[in-house]
Order: sequence, then C-alpha cells, then structure tokens
Amino acid sequence: MRRVAIVGAGMTPFGEHFGLGIKELLPMALSEAEANVDKGFARADFEAAWFGELTTSDGFASGILADSCGLLDIPITRLENACATGNDAVRNAVYGIASGAFDVVLVMGADKVRETSTRSTFWDWMTMTRDMAWDYPLGLVAPGNFALHAARYLHESGATREHLAMVAVKNHHHGVTNPKAQLRQEITIEQALNAPLVADPFGLYDCTPQSDGAAALVLAAEEVVDRYTDRPVWIRGVGLGLDRVMHAHKRDMTTFPATVKAAKAAYAMAGVGPDDIDVAEVHDCFTAVELIDYEDLGFCERFDAKSLVERGETAVGGRLPVNPSGGLKSKGHPPGATGVAQCVELVEQLRGEACNQVDGARVALAHNIGGPTAVSAVTILGSEPA
Amino acid sequence: MRRVAIVGAGMTPFGEHFGLGIKELLPMALSEAEANVDKGFARADFEAAWFGELTTSDGFASGILADSCGLLDIPITRLENACATGNDAVRNAVYGIASGAFDVVLVMGADKVRETSTRSTFWDWMTMTRDMAWDYPLGLVAPGNFALHAARYLHESGATREHLAMVAVKNHHHGVTNPKAQLRQEITIEQALNAPLVADPFGLYDCTPQSDGAAALVLAAEEVVDRYTDRPVWIRGVGLGLDRVMHAHKRDMTTFPATVKAAKAAYAMAGVGPDDIDVAEVHDCFTAVELIDYEDLGFCERFDAKSLVERGETAVGGRLPVNPSGGLKSKGHPPGATGVAQCVELVEQLRGEACNQVDGARVALAHNIGGPTAVSAVTILGSEPA
Repeated sequence: MRRVAIVGAGMTPFGEHFGLGIKELLPMALSEAEANVDKGFARADFEAAWFGELTTSDGFASGILADSCGLLDIPITRLENACATGNDAVRNAVYGIASGAFDVVLVMGADKVRETSTRSTFWDWMTMTRDMAWDYPLGLVAPGNFALHAARYLHESGATREHLAMVAVKNHHHGVTNPKAQLRQEITIEQALNAPLVADPFGLYDCTPQSDGAAALVLAAEEVVDRYTDRPVWIRGVGLGLDRVMHAHKRDMTTFPATVKAAKAAYAMAGVGPDDIDVAEVHDCFTAVELIDYEDLGFCERFDAKSLVERGETAVGGRLPVNPSGGLKSKGHPPGATGVAQCVELVEQLRGEACNQVDGARVALAHNIGGPTAVSAVTILGSEPA
Repeated sequence: MRRVAIVGAGMTPFGEHFGLGIKELLPMALSEAEANVDKGFARADFEAAWFGELTTSDGFASGILADSCGLLDIPITRLENACATGNDAVRNAVYGIASGAFDVVLVMGADKVRETSTRSTFWDWMTMTRDMAWDYPLGLVAPGNFALHAARYLHESGATREHLAMVAVKNHHHGVTNPKAQLRQEITIEQALNAPLVADPFGLYDCTPQSDGAAALVLAAEEVVDRYTDRPVWIRGVGLGLDRVMHAHKRDMTTFPATVKAAKAAYAMAGVGPDDIDVAEVHDCFTAVELIDYEDLGFCERFDAKSLVERGETAVGGRLPVNPSGGLKSKGHPPGATGVAQCVELVEQLRGEACNQVDGARVALAHNIGGPTAVSAVTILGSEPA
C-alpha cells in the first residue's frame, strides 16, 4: 500500500461556542492546519476531502464544508460512525490516497453540539448512536449505557470509584496547559467523588462535557510529502471494528470487542504492538471507559488497569502517557471532530512540540469507541514510516 | 489503480414498506446480491463494507447493518452525501479495494422514508440536504427548490411542460415491466399535464414518490474476480462533484455544475466520453432534472434535451435509453439506496438480462444529483475493464 503522511494539522479550541456556527469553525480549523504545513500550502492543492460530522443542524454537511472553505472543485464525502467518526474519516482518506486516486487530501471533523437552532442536536446525536427500537426507550442514552458497563467493570475488576476519580484528576491536570481544552481546571479526588451523581457510578467529573469544535489534517502521499515538510507524521495503521448495538446482546459488559478488533487491524497494518506505543489519546467519554480501553488496547492485562492509574503510569511522565491533551474529559468532545483532534495532538507529540510533551515519542495511538460500544476506530501514527 | 468489478447485485422492491423495517430490508437486499454471485458466495468473504444511508430512524446505521446481516467482524463505514449517497458509497468502496486494503467488499444503500416512528424522517431528510439558515426557512424543500431550476430552464431552453410530461410518460412506461418498481402504471401526457400542481411547473407526475428500499453490490478486486463469476461488470470510472448549497449563490439555474464536475472525473477515469454510453440511469427526482442531466452529462447540446425526448432517443429502443428501470420517477427513491440500485439495474443491462434490455449494451452510466444540486455522483460501468 502506498504510504500516507500527515503534513499539517490544526483545530479550533473545543468549548461552548455559542457565538460560532459550523461555517465559522470549519475555516478556523482548516486555516490552522494549512498554516501548520512547514513549506507552505495552497488550498488549491487539495484533491479530495473526507468530512466526519454527526449532528450539525446547519444542513447539507459536505456542501457546507465546500461553501464555507472555498472547496467547490473537489469531491467531499461526509461520513458518520458515531463517536468513531473522526478516526474513520482518517481511515477512508488513507484509502483514497493509497488507491492512487489522489496525492493530497483533507480530513475534517466538526460538530456543533451546543446548539439550539432548528433541531435539538444532543438528542439527535443520541438517536443516531444507539438502537431506537429497544435501548433508547429504556433510557440508554450515553451516560446510562456506559454506566452499565462501568458498574459491571468495577464489580469484576476490583477497581473502585476512586480509580475512576484518578482518571478524571489526571486528565483534568493534563488539560490545564492545553490552550485548546474546554475544561482547564485542576480537580481533586474528593471533588470527583463528591460531585453530583449523573448515572451511578458516574458523578459529574466522570463525564465528558458537550462541546463544539472542528479539527483538520492535511494528508499527502509519500511521493509528494517532501513538497510540504521535512518532518511528516506517518499514518502507519488504521482499523475499524464493530460489535452488537443492543445491550441485551453484549456477552461481556467489561470489555469492548469493537476496540479489540479495531486495534488488531491497526497494529497488524502498522507492524507494531501495544508495547511499541509511546503515547496515546483514547476515548474517555466516561472515566471507566479509559480503564477498559487500556485493557482492550493491550496496554495491560485484563482487570489490571487500576494498577496503571494507581502507579501514575498513564500520566505524563509515566511509562505510557494517555490523553496528554486532557482527553475528551477535559479537552472536550464534539463527536465528529474528536478523532481528528486526537491526531492533531499526536502530530504535535511526534514532532516534540506538544503542550504536555512526552519525551522521545515515536509511535502514537488514537482510539475512539462509540455507537453504544458498537464501533471503534484506531489510528497508529509514527515519526518513521512502517 | 487496481481494477474493481461488481460480481453480485441485488435489491428489494422499492415501495411503501410500512410492514418492513430497515432491519428486514438490509438482509433482503444482501441475500439477493449474494445469490446473484454466479459461482457462489459466503458472507464471511466480505472484508469491509460501505453503507449509504440518510434518514433511517432506527438508530446507529453501521451497527444496525452489522447486526441485522451478521457482519460483525468487518469494518463498516456509513456515509451520507444527500441524494448522491449511493454512488458515493460505490466510489469509496472502489478506493478501499484499489488501495490494496481489501479484495472483497460490500456496498449497501438503504432508506426508510415512509416511516413514522420516533422522528419525522421526511423532514429530517430535507434538513440534511439543504442550507438550514437561509434556503429552508424560505420553503426551499425539494419540490420548491427544483421547481425554481425547472421554471428557468423552460424559459431559457424553449422546452415546455409537454416535454416534462414526455419524460414522465417514458419512465412510467419503463417501470411497468420492472418487478422492483414502485409505480408500475402507464400514464398519458394528458394525465401528467392535468395532474394537481405540486410546485409550478411540477404536477404530481413530475415528482418521484417517497420510497423505502435497500440495494446491495458485491465488489471484488481484479485478482479474485474469477473466484466469483465469469461475467464481471467493471467499475470503470467514479466521480463526485460539489457546488454551492444556497440558491442565492447559483450563477445559472439551468445547469448543475456538480454533475458536470462528477461526469468529467468519471469519464476521465473510465477513458470514455458521452458518445460511448449505451444506457444510463440518471437522477429524475423531478422530470425537468432528467432533461438538465442530458445536457450536463454531455448526451446532447445545451437546451437540446427536448429534442431527445421528442424523438424518443432516450426511450428503450432509442439511441441512448435513459432510465430503463423506470428511474426515480417510477422505480422510486429511497435516497441512500437509489444510486446503488441504479448500479444493480446497469449490472443487469450489461449482462443482457434486464427487464427492459438495451441491445448490446457495453458501457453504462449511473448519475445522482442532490443536496439542492450541491452534490453529484457519477459511476461508469463496463462489460470490459478500462
């Protein structure tokens, strides 16, 4: 397969952008990504685009990207795969270049969740990411659905609510220094444990906020990378995994088979394993999910995630820093943008210029889980090609 | 680029399937496509899938396809590009195979428009395919938006409402013999002209019905085609074009630049031109759109589409039969399925087994236009590879 690299990356701050629409957020992220291309970039160099977006109520998504960014002369595909949308957009763009059809393409991800225009977008997002016939009428929107997994996980693993709080404290701490993060404040274990309950065992600080934002990546084929930069970040592996949608069909609530499948595919393509990962951005829409991710991604043995957070191994400075950006927990979570923004963070990590730099990072992993744990996407980046 | 062929094709009847959900329609179409593979097909042969879907209210689309069809071990990407969704799913699947990542993949398209469950899907579809800030509040849902184009087209081209009626009569006539078509009745010019007005100049018979349905294609890389069939249908060209979303920004209401761009890309990739096309399925969501399509696709000179229908050149038996399946007008239009179903029809045409067979057809073209004419997809198929 023809090799593909990221040669530019940018994003808007994540937050409650009540004053900005999707038509403002898209060009903001795109302009930052273009300005990030070391040797300069002309928008006319784009030959195609993939756009990850779930819930924006502004209308026809591909056309709005074309219109607002002046990209009227290239094909644009909008795709949606619940919370795995952003990394699936990366994956499809990789195939577009690897096929030989294009040399230079754009990956965009964006969502306006804090939005009250013509539709109630939070509930639209919820209806789009679960089974409407069975789970939704039972109240299994995101907090309730993940709380079922978390409760069972705590029961079987021996982890406690304190371990969930440790994840929240870590990711809030990381987010403080990230100028793009939505919740830039330290919290304490006590604050997390004493916060109002959202869905047992999740308190307020166990939950990601609702966010608006956009992120962009400029991808180039190996033959043209040199035109744009001398320090490309290579997309070494991509993977997407599925699982049953309804909770009644999940055989084991303490693991996400979609993640296991996505990781297996991405590791195989990249020619690396979990031990090779220097830094990761994983899906921590709820704190317990980050613990389950560690195990599903192979970062530790089953039910041993609690030891990693107890020992600080996944904090910046530890053996395998996870969510140095602050993660969904602190950085925020506009679902279409999240996976793309994880790659923006990891590009900075692999170039040695991240806000919470992981020393000597050479191989990085981005991970999403969504669609009530029915879909996962994994992207593996490297400072060297495979 | 590695060559890609269709080795199996199938679809449900299009219609008002009030008794069937998306979870029934998907396996129906998939089973027919698999049964259509000459040398037999095992579902486990699929390595990936692309799923075109706009508006189904059942929930998480990729997961529902995986669940209902037992496709839990492959990556599935749901994509949406307004009425060009189906052919854009074909295009992305082609890149997936051409990249070398997969040898055998599934393309599905489906929608439930005649649906009154948890959301009003027709209006969701409308909000998804135009600009919500400006055009939608002005009443520019599909009939009104295309009526503006049609009125101007009639004014400038000299075509009349009789020419629109000729398109309706032709496509209804074609649909009568198509067992998959929704509206299987002949109509007359007089009926069309005297039907209740929907949006001037469109009467009832100028408009596609609202439809439910699903369609499926089995795609294979050239190296493995022989395993499945000795009469593959080759995907010779794919193209996607964009244009401005809002009507205030359209410079010329009598042509769709998105179609021109999509056709240019597809013709170039296929190495053919309009004169090489033996049969076409084009987007006739409204009769006037079929006339504009003829011109944008290069089937005739500008403003000369009326001559083609007057002379019967685009009827079966004519020089270049268009919409032998009955088109959207008679066959129906579940938007996510439409483009995939056009390819199902053209596979039958190129194999010499269509219900309205075009003698000696060797090169065929499928076309969609949507997102208030802001997006178009074109796929060119051939009985021989490029």
